[in-house]
Amino acid sequence: MKKLFAEFFGTFWLVFGGCGSALLAAGIPELGIGFTGVSLAFGLTVLTMAYAVGHISGGHFNPAVSIGLWIGGRFPAKELAPYIVSQCVGAVVAAGTLYLILSGKSGFEIDPTQAGAFASNGYDSFSPQGFSITSAFVAEYVLTLFFLIIILGATDKLANGKFAGLAIGLALTLIHLISIPITNTSVNPARSLSQAIFVGGEPLAQVWLFWVAPILGAITGGLIYKNFLGDNK
Amino acid sequence: MKKLFAEFFGTFWLVFGGCGSALLAAGIPELGIGFTGVSLAFGLTVLTMAYAVGHISGGHFNPAVSIGLWIGGRFPAKELAPYIVSQCVGAVVAAGTLYLILSGKSGFEIDPTQAGAFASNGYDSFSPQGFSITSAFVAEYVLTLFFLIIILGATDKLANGKFAGLAIGLALTLIHLISIPITNTSVNPARSLSQAIFVGGEPLAQVWLFWVAPILGAITGGLIYKNFLGDNK
Amino acid sequence: MKKLFAEFFGTFWLVFGGCGSALLAAGIPELGIGFTGVSLAFGLTVLTMAYAVGHISGGHFNPAVSIGLWIGGRFPAKELAPYIVSQCVGAVVAAGTLYLILSGKSGFEIDPTQAGAFASNGYDSFSPQGFSITSAFVAEYVLTLFFLIIILGATDKLANGKFAGLAIGLALTLIHLISIPITNTSVNPARSLSQAIFVGGEPLAQVWLFWVAPILGAITGGLIYKNFLGDNK
Amino acid sequence: MKKLFAEFFGTFWLVFGGCGSALLAAGIPELGIGFTGVSLAFGLTVLTMAYAVGHISGGHFNPAVSIGLWIGGRFPAKELAPYIVSQCVGAVVAAGTLYLILSGKSGFEIDPTQAGAFASNGYDSFSPQGFSITSAFVAEYVLTLFFLIIILGATDKLANGKFAGLAIGLALTLIHLISIPITNTSVNPARSLSQAIFVGGEPLAQVWLFWVAPILGAITGGLIYKNFLGDNK
Repeated sequence: MKKLFAEFFGTFWLVFGGCGSALLAAGIPELGIGFTGVSLAFGLTVLTMAYAVGHISGGHFNPAVSIGLWIGGRFPAKELAPYIVSQCVGAVVAAGTLYLILSGKSGFEIDPTQAGAFASNGYDSFSPQGFSITSAFVAEYVLTLFFLIIILGATDKLANGKFAGLAIGLALTLIHLISIPITNTSVNPARSLSQAIFVGGEPLAQVWLFWVAPILGAITGGLIYKNFLGDNK
Repeated sequence: MKKLFAEFFGTFWLVFGGCGSALLAAGIPELGIGFTGVSLAFGLTVLTMAYAVGHISGGHFNPAVSIGLWIGGRFPAKELAPYIVSQCVGAVVAAGTLYLILSGKSGFEIDPTQAGAFASNGYDSFSPQGFSITSAFVAEYVLTLFFLIIILGATDKLANGKFAGLAIGLALTLIHLISIPITNTSVNPARSLSQAIFVGGEPLAQVWLFWVAPILGAITGGLIYKNFLGDNK
Repeated sequence: MKKLFAEFFGTFWLVFGGCGSALLAAGIPELGIGFTGVSLAFGLTVLTMAYAVGHISGGHFNPAVSIGLWIGGRFPAKELAPYIVSQCVGAVVAAGTLYLILSGKSGFEIDPTQAGAFASNGYDSFSPQGFSITSAFVAEYVLTLFFLIIILGATDKLANGKFAGLAIGLALTLIHLISIPITNTSVNPARSLSQAIFVGGEPLAQVWLFWVAPILGAITGGLIYKNFLGDNK
Repeated sequence: MKKLFAEFFGTFWLVFGGCGSALLAAGIPELGIGFTGVSLAFGLTVLTMAYAVGHISGGHFNPAVSIGLWIGGRFPAKELAPYIVSQCVGAVVAAGTLYLILSGKSGFEIDPTQAGAFASNGYDSFSPQGFSITSAFVAEYVLTLFFLIIILGATDKLANGKFAGLAIGLALTLIHLISIPITNTSVNPARSLSQAIFVGGEPLAQVWLFWVAPILGAITGGLIYKNFLGDNK
């Protein structure tokens, strides 16, 4: 049960901090944090919670990560469903808290016809820079694949494991530095779901890609690490 | 006594570095550090002092943190008052040193009718981006709550404790990346008090919120960690 | 064999993340990551993969690094050729993946007459800020020389070796913060080759410098560390 | 002798990387790294070299640091002079290398009447933002004082010493985030000397302040740590 609380709080923090920084601070003229600041924020949510509650739950905060770790032989199948539910609930509660805070500024409303509304993910005309569904799929697939290689590698018995929280958190920063312009960056189905629910419309209709591509990428990453890089060899 | 010196110097550094970078370097055209640089500066004040004097005093530098650690069972009640006094004195001396440095530029003056004057915190028309008192309260409460979960988690006996200074410092960077636009970010009553004293007027009248919300958040964070996540379970 | 897979994936990640962030996110108006974000991205590719697969292959991801480590007495000559081939293949596959993603945005094409096209390196009129061939050579030579001193020093038996991945990754960030305006920053022949192949024209004709200067710098760095700084003395 | 080589290379790197990033990359329109990037660069020179050669020489790279460590009882008086000479020679050779690289761009020249020319330090009309000599002196004094407290604290026998390179490097980043607008940031007499020599004129005439204020700050920091915070108590 403590594990599920840890995943709830960790995923809340990921969505609240990552999507929150994007919605609140990215675009302010002259002083705004831009995509660099948002990338840093997403990474730091994972870095901070990995050191805070990683010893409790392993610090996944992401359904694709849980699935990839299961494929990689590091996580039991029977814990998959409860972990994923906790992550999604944490993400949705965080999105609701952001909604509450944003409502306290006059003129706030979510426009479901706008790319990236409420920090949602998207492709084609809902991609921040107009990338196609193919580009979006390839990017989400490749980035989640490498995210899992880094997670499995950095937590390998033979690795310098105390630095795993640092490496994994900063990997998420790096992933955002590359791909915010393509899809607004998911690699995390819970983060995509929570924002899409509050937007509705086309962004919600596109959320399937941000479950399928990251999960397939995570499975591939898990298989690659296990078969070609990992300590089983 | 050495502990109180450590808290004095640490909180001086937090206010001098964090508020100083905001006042001196944030808004310079083209080259200024913006909110990203200010967020980094606040976090690095805590990261650096945590590794420098954390072994002496624990490295709180923040009355809400001291209270949250007491609630979480990690800090004795009898040390609360002297710690908080040292922190507030360090913050005020730092604000005075910043005032002295800023006075050496022609045209410097503090305008108490301007949001964020002298790096003060505020809500409603004193919020940097015009957020309501409710938004301000929720943001300060939630962010301090998570700050305490991270502090208590990263310093848990079962955690990878040598990285606590890194995780806690970068948590403060993350908190600023999210919330400078809402309240100019407090989560630290000493930091709010020192700046408000030099501004006076409405910012000083609003300083109560930056004591109440962070302290309530810290208490809640302490209770959550102790009851749902911590090593007592 | 596992070592060569590790070098393949690591160098893929370096090119995909570093050149990818430059091509996708650097120049977006208002929100783009600029040279600071690209510098961070390059460094984080190495930092993350060093902790993920450094225990497998040593984490070179760069032909000049492999050569410098051989000169420094840390890497066997017989592994040089397979490592360098793996690195170049990984880099080229990454560049191809980036090409695929970028093709999904209307209007994308590579202009071989433009400095820095497809994140290629260059000098004279192909230098991002118009630096001469001499400046380019000196910069690439000196920066790779110091990169090797840092790599050899941080992994010295007498050093605090667990931090090597952090120091080496952030050294690459630093190198980019200095030299993107001069040559678009190479210090890595594999990264230069992969981008030049996709551009052709003058950038491909200039790629020799980004093999010669970094390799000579790496050899010099290896000799300096071994003879003046290292544990052999 | 190995120690003096280490200080030579470390201080070369500090000036080449810190001042180099400022001269080459800070002010480029749209993409430039600004003061945030320069601050990061200065800090990363120290972070990287501390992990690379800190085990050889202690990693001072700064005459004020050597003097402060001597006052703090951590460094023998007889090594002071050779260390400071090595540091100044490394800084001057780095400035010369930067001069060589910058000469390869048409239109380059150093204008000694311009504030911050060739990354020089200054006050009054040679302060980047027009701060007075008093502001400059107070800032350099206070920042070097705290720099020494952090150095002495993070390397204290009772501290978590493996993180000292991280804390000290990032302290230099923080110091730059605060004070580039005041004096272009020195806290390091060798870094000030090397740039002033190449500029001449008023910046060279002002270099005395960037020896006196940092050294007095370092002495004060050494005394404070030794008497009020350190393990002698």
